[in-house]
Amino acid sequence: MTTRRPSSVHIREVGPRDGFQNEPEHIPTEQKVRLINALASTGLKRIEVASFVRPDVIPQLSDGVEVLNRIDVPGDVRLMVLIPNSRGLDNALKVREKFHEAAIFVSASETHNKKNVNRTVGETMADNEKMAARIKGEGLDCAAVIATSFGCPYEGRVALERVLGLAERFAEAGATEIGFGDTTGMANPAYVTEFFTAALDRLPGVEVTAHFHNTRGQGLANAFAALEVGCASFESSFGELGGCPVPPGSTGNIATEDLVSMFHEMGVETGLSLPGLIDAARAAQDVLGRKLTSHSIVAGPVNWN
Amino acid sequence: MTTRRPSSVHIREVGPRDGFQNEPEHIPTEQKVRLINALASTGLKRIEVASFVRPDVIPQLSDGVEVLNRIDVPGDVRLMVLIPNSRGLDNALKVREKFHEAAIFVSASETHNKKNVNRTVGETMADNEKMAARIKGEGLDCAAVIATSFGCPYEGRVALERVLGLAERFAEAGATEIGFGDTTGMANPAYVTEFFTAALDRLPGVEVTAHFHNTRGQGLANAFAALEVGCASFESSFGELGGCPVPPGSTGNIATEDLVSMFHEMGVETGLSLPGLIDAARAAQDVLGRKLTSHSIVAGPVNWN
Repeated sequence: MTTRRPSSVHIREVGPRDGFQNEPEHIPTEQKVRLINALASTGLKRIEVASFVRPDVIPQLSDGVEVLNRIDVPGDVRLMVLIPNSRGLDNALKVREKFHEAAIFVSASETHNKKNVNRTVGETMADNEKMAARIKGEGLDCAAVIATSFGCPYEGRVALERVLGLAERFAEAGATEIGFGDTTGMANPAYVTEFFTAALDRLPGVEVTAHFHNTRGQGLANAFAALEVGCASFESSFGELGGCPVPPGSTGNIATEDLVSMFHEMGVETGLSLPGLIDAARAAQDVLGRKLTSHSIVAGPVNWN
Repeated sequence: MTTRRPSSVHIREVGPRDGFQNEPEHIPTEQKVRLINALASTGLKRIEVASFVRPDVIPQLSDGVEVLNRIDVPGDVRLMVLIPNSRGLDNALKVREKFHEAAIFVSASETHNKKNVNRTVGETMADNEKMAARIKGEGLDCAAVIATSFGCPYEGRVALERVLGLAERFAEAGATEIGFGDTTGMANPAYVTEFFTAALDRLPGVEVTAHFHNTRGQGLANAFAALEVGCASFESSFGELGGCPVPPGSTGNIATEDLVSMFHEMGVETGLSLPGLIDAARAAQDVLGRKLTSHSIVAGPVNWN
């Protein structure tokens, strides 16, 4: 079997935003700060830490500015915030010096986009194009995320061409990274192989990022499939935290520590400390007061001695 | 990327032996019978149902003969029993008409073999060769299983040549199927790719079976990697039941329903009913009275409508 497997990958930790967002009980700001600081000490250079969504929509993330103000991370850690709309961008830019990357997003499926942000894909993209210009104008990196890229729980299949067409619009608008989200865990490794082969071919000069959920246990199989065709950028969530606000019951992202365990065992470099990530996930487990579903926090790293 | 992906695969359900063996609380025989009957109604043509290990060593499986006598499965379902040694084979042959396949085994690692069966690999293989001849002589299929094929928790790396050498001895002795077990979850997809490429090349005419555990969440990634280089035979355990007696804490096999979900989503045929498998795993969850770790029993099949 031929492979385009990269020798090293970038991993963005999204637990403090994508993960925490799905927690029903409010997590005290000081605990969020402590966990982000712990993550930032593992070698992670990319962390999504806050969202500028309306506080009444996602109360869990209403302390985003306070989190940004209080965290203490190494100078080379790039912090990302999620921006749902122009009003959110207005608020984010009030603390513009506190982060480095802004993520804008759309759902590839019309129905999911409507349920998620109550706008059409066309309306969302028009706003996204304006936001991308403003983000670039501020000297920030603009990343775009396309949710339900591999299937929609309401509409079923989403055409590859539709997803790549949205990606090309984002790239033209100035996004330098595009993340493809398997929001409700409908991707499979065969389609992932086809998808990322096409995406990497069609988006030269853009960082192509894979964002998988482990809804049906296939998350790492999908990550391996993407890796094998040359994908070198991944998003994951410590402790396997996460999900999606719609539909209810959508389960977690792939666990950062399980992803890193697999990559390290394969000889793919991440620059991260697996024991450190496991410690951070165990700390999150203590804060949340329930057993998390990550495997590595139970099994630990493979011991080859 | 080129692939040798087969269009269909065989799956053996090993939960009633490999899975139940690791349950600390005794499962009533009538519940075992009910669950095996449920599994046999899902299209499964291969089920491992009993072990002829000493009852004082694994009390959970001491009712093997009663299970074999009481289950009621379609005539084309092939039943497998595990045979640890010649005395176990003596006992199994007393009910020779109740099963179709006998599995013999060894650990590739000397230390794991010693801890698991208290003999050297050499002693075990000498007994295995005699047993293979007797099993063939009875007109039964002889399958061999090599535990710790991808790594040993005590010895670390196990040389590929050592594992394939044992496989060749089994094949010469008459085994028509050889299963490679990732007993404590140390395999990774890169090594699995290398391993099964070599194993399929070196064992012509032998059915090469992959047996993965999901200890570190990589089980399905390993299954996908094996599939892509041509492996068409897999073992798995409903509900993600299972583990290994040594070392303590070794966690479950890959879940049959998660494996089947992945294969069906990829367009790889299994001949199995995914809803039926999920029902069986949920029934096991009820019998065992604790939440099992399979993903599909929570998420269900992907809905593409």
